[in-house]
Amino acid sequence: MKKINVSIVGAAGYSGEELLRLLIRHPHAEIKCITSRKNDGVHISEVFPRFADTDLYFSKPDVNKIIEESDVVFLALPHGLAAEYAEPFVKAGLRVFDLSADFRLNSLEKYKEYYKVDHPAPELMKMAVYGAPERKKQEIVDTTLVACPGCYPTSITLPLCPLLKSGLVETEGIVASSMSGVSGAGRKVDLPFIFPECNESVRPYGVTGHRHLPEIEQELAEAAGVESIAINFIPHLVPVTRGIHSTIIAKAKTGVTAEEIGDVLRTVYADAPFVRVLPAGKLADTKHITLTNVCEIGYAYDEHTGNVILSSAIDNLTKGASGQAVQSMNIVFGFEETAGLL
Amino acid sequence: MKKINVSIVGAAGYSGEELLRLLIRHPHAEIKCITSRKNDGVHISEVFPRFADTDLYFSKPDVNKIIEESDVVFLALPHGLAAEYAEPFVKAGLRVFDLSADFRLNSLEKYKEYYKVDHPAPELMKMAVYGAPERKKQEIVDTTLVACPGCYPTSITLPLCPLLKSGLVETEGIVASSMSGVSGAGRKVDLPFIFPECNESVRPYGVTGHRHLPEIEQELAEAAGVESIAINFIPHLVPVTRGIHSTIIAKAKTGVTAEEIGDVLRTVYADAPFVRVLPAGKLADTKHITLTNVCEIGYAYDEHTGNVILSSAIDNLTKGASGQAVQSMNIVFGFEETAGLL
Amino acid sequence: MKKINVSIVGAAGYSGEELLRLLIRHPHAEIKCITSRKNDGVHISEVFPRFADTDLYFSKPDVNKIIEESDVVFLALPHGLAAEYAEPFVKAGLRVFDLSADFRLNSLEKYKEYYKVDHPAPELMKMAVYGAPERKKQEIVDTTLVACPGCYPTSITLPLCPLLKSGLVETEGIVASSMSGVSGAGRKVDLPFIFPECNESVRPYGVTGHRHLPEIEQELAEAAGVESIAINFIPHLVPVTRGIHSTIIAKAKTGVTAEEIGDVLRTVYADAPFVRVLPAGKLADTKHITLTNVCEIGYAYDEHTGNVILSSAIDNLTKGASGQAVQSMNIVFGFEETAGLL
Amino acid sequence: MKKINVSIVGAAGYSGEELLRLLIRHPHAEIKCITSRKNDGVHISEVFPRFADTDLYFSKPDVNKIIEESDVVFLALPHGLAAEYAEPFVKAGLRVFDLSADFRLNSLEKYKEYYKVDHPAPELMKMAVYGAPERKKQEIVDTTLVACPGCYPTSITLPLCPLLKSGLVETEGIVASSMSGVSGAGRKVDLPFIFPECNESVRPYGVTGHRHLPEIEQELAEAAGVESIAINFIPHLVPVTRGIHSTIIAKAKTGVTAEEIGDVLRTVYADAPFVRVLPAGKLADTKHITLTNVCEIGYAYDEHTGNVILSSAIDNLTKGASGQAVQSMNIVFGFEETAGLL
Repeated sequence: MKKINVSIVGAAGYSGEELLRLLIRHPHAEIKCITSRKNDGVHISEVFPRFADTDLYFSKPDVNKIIEESDVVFLALPHGLAAEYAEPFVKAGLRVFDLSADFRLNSLEKYKEYYKVDHPAPELMKMAVYGAPERKKQEIVDTTLVACPGCYPTSITLPLCPLLKSGLVETEGIVASSMSGVSGAGRKVDLPFIFPECNESVRPYGVTGHRHLPEIEQELAEAAGVESIAINFIPHLVPVTRGIHSTIIAKAKTGVTAEEIGDVLRTVYADAPFVRVLPAGKLADTKHITLTNVCEIGYAYDEHTGNVILSSAIDNLTKGASGQAVQSMNIVFGFEETAGLL
Repeated sequence: MKKINVSIVGAAGYSGEELLRLLIRHPHAEIKCITSRKNDGVHISEVFPRFADTDLYFSKPDVNKIIEESDVVFLALPHGLAAEYAEPFVKAGLRVFDLSADFRLNSLEKYKEYYKVDHPAPELMKMAVYGAPERKKQEIVDTTLVACPGCYPTSITLPLCPLLKSGLVETEGIVASSMSGVSGAGRKVDLPFIFPECNESVRPYGVTGHRHLPEIEQELAEAAGVESIAINFIPHLVPVTRGIHSTIIAKAKTGVTAEEIGDVLRTVYADAPFVRVLPAGKLADTKHITLTNVCEIGYAYDEHTGNVILSSAIDNLTKGASGQAVQSMNIVFGFEETAGLL
Repeated sequence: MKKINVSIVGAAGYSGEELLRLLIRHPHAEIKCITSRKNDGVHISEVFPRFADTDLYFSKPDVNKIIEESDVVFLALPHGLAAEYAEPFVKAGLRVFDLSADFRLNSLEKYKEYYKVDHPAPELMKMAVYGAPERKKQEIVDTTLVACPGCYPTSITLPLCPLLKSGLVETEGIVASSMSGVSGAGRKVDLPFIFPECNESVRPYGVTGHRHLPEIEQELAEAAGVESIAINFIPHLVPVTRGIHSTIIAKAKTGVTAEEIGDVLRTVYADAPFVRVLPAGKLADTKHITLTNVCEIGYAYDEHTGNVILSSAIDNLTKGASGQAVQSMNIVFGFEETAGLL
Repeated sequence: MKKINVSIVGAAGYSGEELLRLLIRHPHAEIKCITSRKNDGVHISEVFPRFADTDLYFSKPDVNKIIEESDVVFLALPHGLAAEYAEPFVKAGLRVFDLSADFRLNSLEKYKEYYKVDHPAPELMKMAVYGAPERKKQEIVDTTLVACPGCYPTSITLPLCPLLKSGLVETEGIVASSMSGVSGAGRKVDLPFIFPECNESVRPYGVTGHRHLPEIEQELAEAAGVESIAINFIPHLVPVTRGIHSTIIAKAKTGVTAEEIGDVLRTVYADAPFVRVLPAGKLADTKHITLTNVCEIGYAYDEHTGNVILSSAIDNLTKGASGQAVQSMNIVFGFEETAGLL
């Protein structure tokens, strides 16, 4: 099988590093350009010593060169900048996998409300598909612009959407309490993220109006078949490098049992290679899934309150970002869904 | 001022260590017996090298000797065993501060439901006072047996009780998502608590029926003036040594504003030396309060859902156990509430 | 190519887990028996949830069954016990890869001195080969019993042996200061290894007479072509899960330069797929090599003292144990040396 | 006793925070000015929420105001800048405790060699005293400018100087392998110090020519009564917030025993309230001394190589910086040496 040519724009951050880790050994992909303005001309081992045995150098982003050499481009850029780059690549017919938030929302108003600027490319937004491989396989195949889901949303929508869709839980009163490792903040040099500020620290942030909130609510509403859902999403920062754990509480519809919850989850994900529904009574643990593309899901029903409790764990850089993007690429090109991801 | 004589039964665990740390330099207390069956005759520096410059030795628990030498006894024992020891000390008129769960509940049924045994000393249970110094100062003074609150309950009741009491939030649909450091499991040698199993791991446990649940609900119901409250309490283990963070979500009554929430919290705790209500918009962080007896409280009102979000942080071994016990002792003996705790 | 059949005796510890991780996806190996007395009959996902998508169950060690079904057996057992198991497997003609210390030493006296018991199988000891793939490829092929090197020794011999062999450094006055992650202690439930005892702790142990010392000295002496070498080996425990870093100081022979050191290391390891000699001025970092079979080596020459400073990093469970064992297996069977290890 | 007035220039870093922690509750000191250009006008709880219950605000450094209001000034500034500030304060007769490296060296040449600039205030350098309280009590009393020792040097000179002075060890071939927590890098926002880069990482740095090296060698030479000593000092960064551990290897003079080493250390430090010589066979652990001003010292004699092995642990911010500075202040003003430090 001929390999496809892939390029990565913004390859010197943690998502870029994870894309490199996955694509360097991908059986059907060959890496062409990896860009980093700051590291132009530098061998990747200078930035990521792990990759010493490859022959890759960072370069400044050269759009024409990327178009010429690539079938696929991954954008691992800040929002706003991603949309700028997406435009020429989409026009040129490349398959674009955008890891930023630029094309995840369906609503220009929501984008403006949460990102405080007008959307930089509204027409692209319309054609973009929210790239959740477990829910939108065909849409992903049919588009050229995949908006790869955010890390927190992935950890919340995977366990919760099937229960909303099947009507086992109410759409009101949902609470998601999530804990993320520090790599979730990116390879960003900022005081709150230096070791002595994170170590031995547990803290929530953005408890109202976090930028992942509209994305989560959009996908939950779609699953539930309602116009909108309002939830409380509470992210916390905890001293681990990788991993997100989400605990989700939702009101069960009358008469729902733990067995039904388990059955629905197991049925929906029967053929999903990267979703692992745990046996009843077991709960997810980030330790089990770091460096994998797996989302581990546990569930319980609390008779005491009549609530369903979901527990999910993903690696924020793999299933929560780069791994899921590669999974979508596999789907688009008809590779095995797990190619390069095991 | 003459010093009071204090003994510690079960002094070789983490709560015991924390009692030692606080009492060794307490201006009004002198440590008499510190017991540990396993370390009988051993200088405490063998177990806790930090305390090398003291003259304390562990001994087997000798009830008569303790009664003879002490005004106060702290019980840092597993539940069940604590009740056994409490009995002779209470009879002998010592002031007993029990750090176990044995005397925290008012209901024999709840005790049996959650601890799976009949309560070992029902008559003592009746006279015991739930020793939350911010809410029950006079009761603590009037009893001889103080049931020191659990760590999770402390982190939840301190921020939430005032809002329930003042009627700002509904009693239904409350969710508390808590994250605890590993010292909360005690100085217990068990596979889930060894370093490689905890490091880089975030995991919930006991999401239904945790033993701290009835204690939390009892105190919340009392504050709300209702017969019972049912909440979802979801504890998580995170890789820090000390500290608990709790995020609490409760439905605001119609018309309630963030200002009102802040006002109530600030008014209720105006004279509480160990409760720090943060400015609006700030959230609690365990890092701010480790090794202190402080409970840090942040709050927010989410217009989006109409819910109040509370954020609290305590040191599980200080405010969540030994520090709060010493605070109660200070109250009982008329010392400054902060003596030995700053 | 027909797959070889492998079994693992003692598969429920960390070395066993790492063997499983590597062998489950090994292109030329098929796992047959994995034993654990304690977990007899249990699916491996009960112990290691990561491996949920395999069909492996622990069983009690059944020597005859293993012999019948396997070409290769890995022993991940405590010393003493390993020798017991090795005997029948060697007799039956299986290729045995022992991860314990039982067959690493050439001297029965040294074994007794450091392990405090007579060697349990002296005749096997004679035929065993110290399985350092970079130095003893042919010997590994020619034996049936490979004594896989210890973690600390691997991190010290890989950088230092070439310099001793080429005569660039003196054999006297060598100091090796090593830091190990806690998984090096095994999946052992013991007070010093619980999270609150390890976190925020840096501590040496076994600074004289550590059991890895005779093994290190034996291999260094062999490389130097001298009868014996005495070094100071100082292991420390640091709060990481995986990884060993060793800093080694050795007196340079007169006139030796940094370039020569680098040249020798680069020449010796030119064809070694798992040794990465860093550019001059760069030092090893465990973060670069965790979950890989790579030994990263940095070097410097200190004009000030005339000493060579070597810095090496390995993953204690991969290159320091299971990965190196699989590497040897690959060599024995003529697979690519990197098979299953990239 | 009238309190002395103290000011802190550069109070918003980790050494500044530690000075604040110690001085806020110091029985004989009152804090006047705390400066931070960046945080001018800001209440300290904005930067350090721990100190919410104080009435301190950062201000821009106003030399005249500080001189007017203070008896003592602590300089917690980068080298170079510290010397600039020291000058007017010394002239005005304040007692100056400089935590930077500006006045630690006796040699202008060494300063230039290691700091790459001419010394900014050579005349002040002459009057400055290296403020090691255990070795230079009277000199500290007699000067107005105390150069507070560096963190690594403190951890190395405290165990080693007595052995050099008493002639128990050789001056040649000394190796010091030290491991520091990340707070040692200061509250500095730089890529190598963000959590994901430090966590699960063990790495040496500055293995030749570290800036603490001339300071260490100067003090060792003075203790040994020789003109100069050349050692290998190898610092490592490990993922803890606070604490330095140093392992020191030195050749014992012929006939020296472990007992003699212990005797010398215990005799020299018999009256030192902050040095804890461990029983024979015990080794230092950073966990034992974090947040204290104690230096814990362990020792062993290795018959195998004839070397002495020393193990020491300090809190880099307390005994390694701010605590030791306060200790010197106590000595200067005739307070109990331990005032504010227990």
